[in-house]
Amino acid sequence: MSSELSDRIRLPVEPSDIAEAHARIRPYIRRTPIMEAALAEAPGARVFFKLEFTQHAGSFKSRGAFNNLLSREIPAAGVTAASGGNHGIAVAQAARRLGCSARIFVPEISAKVKVDAIRSTGCELIIGGARYADAQVSCDAYASQSGALLVHPIDSVATISGQGTLAKEWEEDHYPLGWGKLDTVLVGVGGGGLIAGMAAWWRGRVKVVSVEPEGSRCLQAALQAGHPVDVPVESIAADSLGARRAGDLVFEIAKYAVADSILVADDAIKQAQQLLLRDFRIISEPGGAAALGALISRRYEPQRGERVGVLLCGGNVDPTKI
Amino acid sequence: MSSELSDRIRLPVEPSDIAEAHARIRPYIRRTPIMEAALAEAPGARVFFKLEFTQHAGSFKSRGAFNNLLSREIPAAGVTAASGGNHGIAVAQAARRLGCSARIFVPEISAKVKVDAIRSTGCELIIGGARYADAQVSCDAYASQSGALLVHPIDSVATISGQGTLAKEWEEDHYPLGWGKLDTVLVGVGGGGLIAGMAAWWRGRVKVVSVEPEGSRCLQAALQAGHPVDVPVESIAADSLGARRAGDLVFEIAKYAVADSILVADDAIKQAQQLLLRDFRIISEPGGAAALGALISRRYEPQRGERVGVLLCGGNVDPTKI
Repeated sequence: MSSELSDRIRLPVEPSDIAEAHARIRPYIRRTPIMEAALAEAPGARVFFKLEFTQHAGSFKSRGAFNNLLSREIPAAGVTAASGGNHGIAVAQAARRLGCSARIFVPEISAKVKVDAIRSTGCELIIGGARYADAQVSCDAYASQSGALLVHPIDSVATISGQGTLAKEWEEDHYPLGWGKLDTVLVGVGGGGLIAGMAAWWRGRVKVVSVEPEGSRCLQAALQAGHPVDVPVESIAADSLGARRAGDLVFEIAKYAVADSILVADDAIKQAQQLLLRDFRIISEPGGAAALGALISRRYEPQRGERVGVLLCGGNVDPTKI
Repeated sequence: MSSELSDRIRLPVEPSDIAEAHARIRPYIRRTPIMEAALAEAPGARVFFKLEFTQHAGSFKSRGAFNNLLSREIPAAGVTAASGGNHGIAVAQAARRLGCSARIFVPEISAKVKVDAIRSTGCELIIGGARYADAQVSCDAYASQSGALLVHPIDSVATISGQGTLAKEWEEDHYPLGWGKLDTVLVGVGGGGLIAGMAAWWRGRVKVVSVEPEGSRCLQAALQAGHPVDVPVESIAADSLGARRAGDLVFEIAKYAVADSILVADDAIKQAQQLLLRDFRIISEPGGAAALGALISRRYEPQRGERVGVLLCGGNVDPTKI
């Protein structure tokens, strides 16, 4: 188990940033429920789910999106983001909620259900570029030319602080429900904005474990190399966990505050999705089921009595694909 | 608002029955999560969902099933029930969990997803009879001939007490999460076992409102007639709320402890299912969405600031049908 970080270690995002973000976004986000889920697949451990897929826009990304839009000045040109996925949905919905315009750049490879969700907000949708990096180039160019506020999906203090509110909220609700302290939390990782925020909140008080697909492991690669590096991306969960490179801020936080980094096979992710649907009537996208996949495939093996939080972080998926 | 029942009124199920049931079944059931859901469709009210569809077997029926199996002696012939729906799934799963055999009689009209769920438990499945009443006749005959324990879906003290644990649990969790007292709870009603248990727990401390489809209104008809009567059944939610007649025990409880009885159109049920999927990534069967349908179609109009609990009681549905 990791132990608490020394107070002397300063991370790019501090708990006070997250507390301020929470005060700011609380009226606009959902406090998502937690439940105990005794799993035959993890005998002996106590497993808790946080149902973050019930969040606005279907994922935790609304937390970071609202924190950006509420803490930064929004120019007349509105906001912009590059994402064919959960970040794009979250920014577009948050913009609509706050009454500003949004232009979202979507790569051609995006899942239809996600593009439809972005479109349904009434934002301006630009489909361009084969892959995410191409959409980001177009988005960057648009932002600098128009003055629109660019909302980064991962590697900004405002985004990471917003995502970190999830850990604060989980901790606040876990005790009153009589479940005591969480020992461990398993978190699916794409570019790492979410796990960085959660780890920055807990600073070692809870063992934060990153779970990446075997075919998309940018955080583990960064931790091994000592700095972010490019990795190939090929996974069933690529549409949400498919980042090519961990963020710089993410890496600075993760190297101190993420206790362990594990990988999960695509098959286990699929099995976790099916388990959630069959035993809990929960729909989870592949990225949202990765953390559970690590548990049921025993890539993470809890101790007896260990209280393990499993984050179900996104539900933007066509249910027929499960 | 209804006010508390006098202590002198004795109901067929008392809070002590429910507390005993809860102590008995707690190790076997899930404590299902609750969440606040600010709904544009109910401005001014505070709306809370209880996600009972995450219960074992996909509905509250597991509560009553386990309470039956744990409080009554199980003969060598095992248990039996007539149901092509949630009760059948719940009894079959509970029997498997407790290591006894089960024979479930299923009418031909049952939804495929439910029959599949019953079959997947490995129980003995008998498809016979066009409608529920026919299956019940076969089941009764089998029980008296074999000695198998018949688990009634609705109208028994053990079943109603088991379902009533849902209200006890909701109350226990609502306060610690800082939401104070529930004022009102909207509950979808089929034969009435669930609402009877919940109303028996609260005894007027919370305003319990029954929600029935316009085309399947056996509880309202009983309350109007002064005794249970047969009603026609024709509704999108008939596979879970399609009882032809309210139970006798149910009626005795409801006439004192159910504050209001309202009806909801099938269209509103459908819209509630779609809202849950679109805004919460929650799959709900029609019966599970009826309570929400009453709220969004303004059949129930809350006061400003009223804390309204909406029970999402079942998720056994093919998601492509939403």
